Amino acid sequence: MSRPAPPAFPGPASEQDFLDLIAGHFPEAHAHVELGRGDDCAILRCPERICLTTDLFLEDRHFRRAYFEPEDVGRKVLAVNLSDILGMGGRPLGFALNLMAPRDVPRAWWDRMFLAMSGLARDYGAPLVGGDLSAAERIGLAVTMWGEAVPGGEFKRRGRTEPGDLLVAVGPLGLARAGLLALEEGGRHAAADAPHAVAWHLCPTLDPESSAALARMPFVRGLMDVSDGLCQDVPRFLARGQGAALGFDGLALHEEVRAAARARGQDPALFAALGGEDYALLGAVPPERLDEARAAVPRLMPIGRVTATPGLTLNDAPLPGGFDHFRPADTED
Amino acid sequence: MSRPAPPAFPGPASEQDFLDLIAGHFPEAHAHVELGRGDDCAILRCPERICLTTDLFLEDRHFRRAYFEPEDVGRKVLAVNLSDILGMGGRPLGFALNLMAPRDVPRAWWDRMFLAMSGLARDYGAPLVGGDLSAAERIGLAVTMWGEAVPGGEFKRRGRTEPGDLLVAVGPLGLARAGLLALEEGGRHAAADAPHAVAWHLCPTLDPESSAALARMPFVRGLMDVSDGLCQDVPRFLARGQGAALGFDGLALHEEVRAAARARGQDPALFAALGGEDYALLGAVPPERLDEARAAVPRLMPIGRVTATPGLTLNDAPLPGGFDHFRPADTED
Repeated sequence: MSRPAPPAFPGPASEQDFLDLIAGHFPEAHAHVELGRGDDCAILRCPERICLTTDLFLEDRHFRRAYFEPEDVGRKVLAVNLSDILGMGGRPLGFALNLMAPRDVPRAWWDRMFLAMSGLARDYGAPLVGGDLSAAERIGLAVTMWGEAVPGGEFKRRGRTEPGDLLVAVGPLGLARAGLLALEEGGRHAAADAPHAVAWHLCPTLDPESSAALARMPFVRGLMDVSDGLCQDVPRFLARGQGAALGFDGLALHEEVRAAARARGQDPALFAALGGEDYALLGAVPPERLDEARAAVPRLMPIGRVTATPGLTLNDAPLPGGFDHFRPADTED
Repeated sequence: MSRPAPPAFPGPASEQDFLDLIAGHFPEAHAHVELGRGDDCAILRCPERICLTTDLFLEDRHFRRAYFEPEDVGRKVLAVNLSDILGMGGRPLGFALNLMAPRDVPRAWWDRMFLAMSGLARDYGAPLVGGDLSAAERIGLAVTMWGEAVPGGEFKRRGRTEPGDLLVAVGPLGLARAGLLALEEGGRHAAADAPHAVAWHLCPTLDPESSAALARMPFVRGLMDVSDGLCQDVPRFLARGQGAALGFDGLALHEEVRAAARARGQDPALFAALGGEDYALLGAVPPERLDEARAAVPRLMPIGRVTATPGLTLNDAPLPGGFDHFRPADTED
């Protein structure tokens, strides 16, 4: 057969071509997957309990192509979902991908995105079991991911804190925010001035070992992933009616966070607490178990204490709220 | 506390307002749901095997607000996913919803959409266990749904047909296509001329009883949901290397399908085979078991026979392919 003429646009030539591209990157063989892609549904072998999350990752809302390379997009959309699984003390079993694809995005762009995504998926042993594909005006991804409790561990929920518990964090608070501000102001070139911050915003490096260690300690009262900043996420983490007195020294923060706060005349601790997209872990530990927790999770940082009454303070000053997609003052357009 | 001034746009006032709206419509109590919305992940009690599907439903790609009422959008996005579950011989356990929401869509629009969606979800006993929400330029929904095999049944896959098997369909082939053409030409007013076709396109009425009955008959070799038209879906249903000789009389089709074909000077059987969004069931049955299958599934219609060699014919004429989102000739923009 003679081959058809190449299409006049640079994207995948057909839906089948797109599916073939995906098939080339994502193997399906996995003990969890009885039937993979290509039928009405996947068929999955499941443990008694799974945890499940889903997240949108939309161009010009969650990322900009001006400074996100295709590899960053592919990795970050998975990382955002993986972070939710780790925030439960789980480990991923598989994921599904909905893809909104403008026709003018080159095939090579997708190829690079899938290569990076499949690399991260392989690191976590998470097969792609299905999805959907549609033309659209902007790139958009919606990932659904599910997982199981880590061996010897249990799922850790929110809302189980007790007054007096220490709040602990694992991950560089405020670093993603510093990176976002640098990228929005200086584009990809900003990487020269704030390389760690920019890298963390483009794709956070998650910490499955710390999550698993916390999941295995029965005295850890809850775990969550900090994605909207401590100001918004700490109240969501506490049991009803409680508050928190956050307190940490700017010196405990990453150097690039301190520099970003200084450059804007802001208090570094407040800058970090307002952050977003930290993809850090937040947990609660009875004070008498802190040393034990620290021995198992060396990067754990105490950031405050649970109070018996509502309200959030940081270094004794009241804290404002965080970002809201729908509150007019927070939106960009 | 005094209430804040109403916002200058008619949409939900904040992300929390949006989440409250959803919470008001979707109860979470369900034996399957150990932990529902509001944490990093839901925690789900699972049988040994689940089936899982995910679908995009995007404004101006899959529906138009010009003739889709909010109730239609809410029901159809669920129906599209339910149809995949029924196409496996399953029944739903739960679903997750990603929502892309332009800020100028009134709160009342969402309220109506959620009311209709939650009604259909309740009919099927499927709780909403989580999701994500983002501002966007157009309305978009991505639903992930999972299910279990019906009691006494088994999941039915594609690719298990044998030469000589009868292909059988349940559902009005071509009716959604007739509805789409009527709506695109005449808008919502088209409902007067083609009420069943328009209603089927706006939201198909699924047939869980027929799906369950087929799933319970061990001799049924495979099941799938027909969503892209027989021309595209029959080849996907057959075992490798096989083809099919489709044959059915235009008189077996819905009167509005025949009228739509006639009005366009097309053969009604071909019109129906090219259809899309039928959300009908397609199965394979050994000829000697047809009567038994028909007794259990009265609406079952034989539509052809599996052949030992590739190729698709309809009433002895070769059949062309169906719709492709990315092939230039098939796209609208």
